[in-house]
Amino acid sequence: MQLPILADRFRCVIYEENQLKLLNRRVYPHKTEYVVCRDVESVAKAIEDMIVQGAAVIAYTAGYGLALAANVQRNMGRDELKKTLTKAAERLKNTRPTGAELFHVIESSLAVGLKSLEEGKNPEEEIARHVYSLMKRGEEIARKTGEHAARLLEDGKTVLTNCYAGPALVYAMLFARERGSYVKAYVPETRPYLQGARLTAPTLKEAGIETTLIPDTSVGHLIKSGKVNVYMTAADRVALDGSIANKVGTYLYAVVASKHGVPFYVLAYTGPDKKTHTYNAIVVEERDPEEVLTLANEPTAPDGVTAYYPAFDIVPPEYIAGLVTERGVFHPSEMKHYWG
Amino acid sequence: MQLPILADRFRCVIYEENQLKLLNRRVYPHKTEYVVCRDVESVAKAIEDMIVQGAAVIAYTAGYGLALAANVQRNMGRDELKKTLTKAAERLKNTRPTGAELFHVIESSLAVGLKSLEEGKNPEEEIARHVYSLMKRGEEIARKTGEHAARLLEDGKTVLTNCYAGPALVYAMLFARERGSYVKAYVPETRPYLQGARLTAPTLKEAGIETTLIPDTSVGHLIKSGKVNVYMTAADRVALDGSIANKVGTYLYAVVASKHGVPFYVLAYTGPDKKTHTYNAIVVEERDPEEVLTLANEPTAPDGVTAYYPAFDIVPPEYIAGLVTERGVFHPSEMKHYWG
Repeated sequence: MQLPILADRFRCVIYEENQLKLLNRRVYPHKTEYVVCRDVESVAKAIEDMIVQGAAVIAYTAGYGLALAANVQRNMGRDELKKTLTKAAERLKNTRPTGAELFHVIESSLAVGLKSLEEGKNPEEEIARHVYSLMKRGEEIARKTGEHAARLLEDGKTVLTNCYAGPALVYAMLFARERGSYVKAYVPETRPYLQGARLTAPTLKEAGIETTLIPDTSVGHLIKSGKVNVYMTAADRVALDGSIANKVGTYLYAVVASKHGVPFYVLAYTGPDKKTHTYNAIVVEERDPEEVLTLANEPTAPDGVTAYYPAFDIVPPEYIAGLVTERGVFHPSEMKHYWG
Repeated sequence: MQLPILADRFRCVIYEENQLKLLNRRVYPHKTEYVVCRDVESVAKAIEDMIVQGAAVIAYTAGYGLALAANVQRNMGRDELKKTLTKAAERLKNTRPTGAELFHVIESSLAVGLKSLEEGKNPEEEIARHVYSLMKRGEEIARKTGEHAARLLEDGKTVLTNCYAGPALVYAMLFARERGSYVKAYVPETRPYLQGARLTAPTLKEAGIETTLIPDTSVGHLIKSGKVNVYMTAADRVALDGSIANKVGTYLYAVVASKHGVPFYVLAYTGPDKKTHTYNAIVVEERDPEEVLTLANEPTAPDGVTAYYPAFDIVPPEYIAGLVTERGVFHPSEMKHYWG
């Protein structure tokens, strides 16, 4: 099964010859162009500026950023290099506050780096190998999650999906189709970054799925008029109480979907974050208001109008029909026992 | 009380010397520029292309379009001119299907035109005089509606308002402020035409009201985090069953507002449409999908992705706390008795 480029992380985040090549999601699909990073700061900026996007891809990018830090400073003394790596990890962690995977990948990559220094190994190689193995594992998780999710799309479901739900959604649609279901998608454009228009719609189209783009505001009308059967997204974080954080708008859509009996399934990949007990622990990132005050780099409102841009919102468990992980489909109330 | 330009319809729709000057809402606020129409077809196109916008302004524009038709064909015989006016009225009625005011103004203007022909008067002058008197009356209605709505904003309310609610909202905010309430507004940008960013935000700012622009999708988060006290919009049509049609997204927002105890008040100006018994009678306009597939004239999604753009949605009465008309504030269930 050939995945579309955006769903194939190995074509989006490429570490080679001491440089990190990132598929530039700010210009895709109009251009398939890579941003090349050679140090920590350029990686951190690429994350902040949304060159990369999506919890897992952000996390792998940051992990490789740490490998670059080790490479740039390869002639440093051991203790100094430890400090440098620790500082680089801090810088990378501070890029985006909402997703949990970023923290996990950086922490484990830092641990690998520090250990390799203790053992006299090459920290750059060890970190890069570690991140690559996480990507291989991530790919397996996405495929399994997609297989379980495909069962929810039987009998030709029409799926509403906002922002970009990653490879598990693509797998789910493709597996459902393999089983003979004619599945379709409605995709809100997802202002201000247009992930729906620029990432999800081209990816589903590349996978041969019938895809209709809609204004973000039309979801209520769409659900009310019976045009969608299932609402399905990823999540930037899943808490142990069964709540999730996802692209802002998800709460609006989940409430109205629930009102009309349209089940909301969350592609939760690895499951809940062990350290996030309730949604209260999730920091909702507030991004630069300038992103709302401009459109295609042109101002939309006159000077003096201020803006507010929370990038995520929280959906409580009562609006979630199920969370799909690599292990299967779970009720939100099962999240608290997920890790045993 | 000096109204901002957009709230002052006499500065937006100007009929003079046999031409109709329309403030171009597609370029405002970046440019304050008028589109000049000299015949019915250019008026109809201006309405379709959203040079003008808002139920009342669209209706007055169409009314003057009929005056132009009478002017252009002033040398025609009486019976032929009657046919021409009737045909022009049809053309203008077919521009936008959702608002009721458009039909009323065209029908009454056509009646005035036909009658003036019977009586040997100048139909252009009579129609123009008629439309002008409707505008004067409309201004009075907006002011009274605003006065009643201002009472709902006491104690410094923060108002959520999407799309463009017209002069009644401006009056409501200004009257509330005159009475000592520090009122503020949150305005979703309202893709794809950005009426929120381009019309409402500059208008409220011109009126000196603190205004914050937000992405359309952030309304759920905003309401949930307690940042707004009142949700207030206009309506493109009010039915006798107390339901309304308004800019797509209103249903999403109304459902979530109701969930969180934020009252939704509709600025209904003249009240319900006498001929619209239930929401089933309201045609939801589906606009050109191209409007969703482009942003600032650039395509957002790749070729082959289709789009769907319903421009309005319907809010049933159970989500409406009150409808504010020139006569006062009414419960949706009172709409059926509004006309006696």
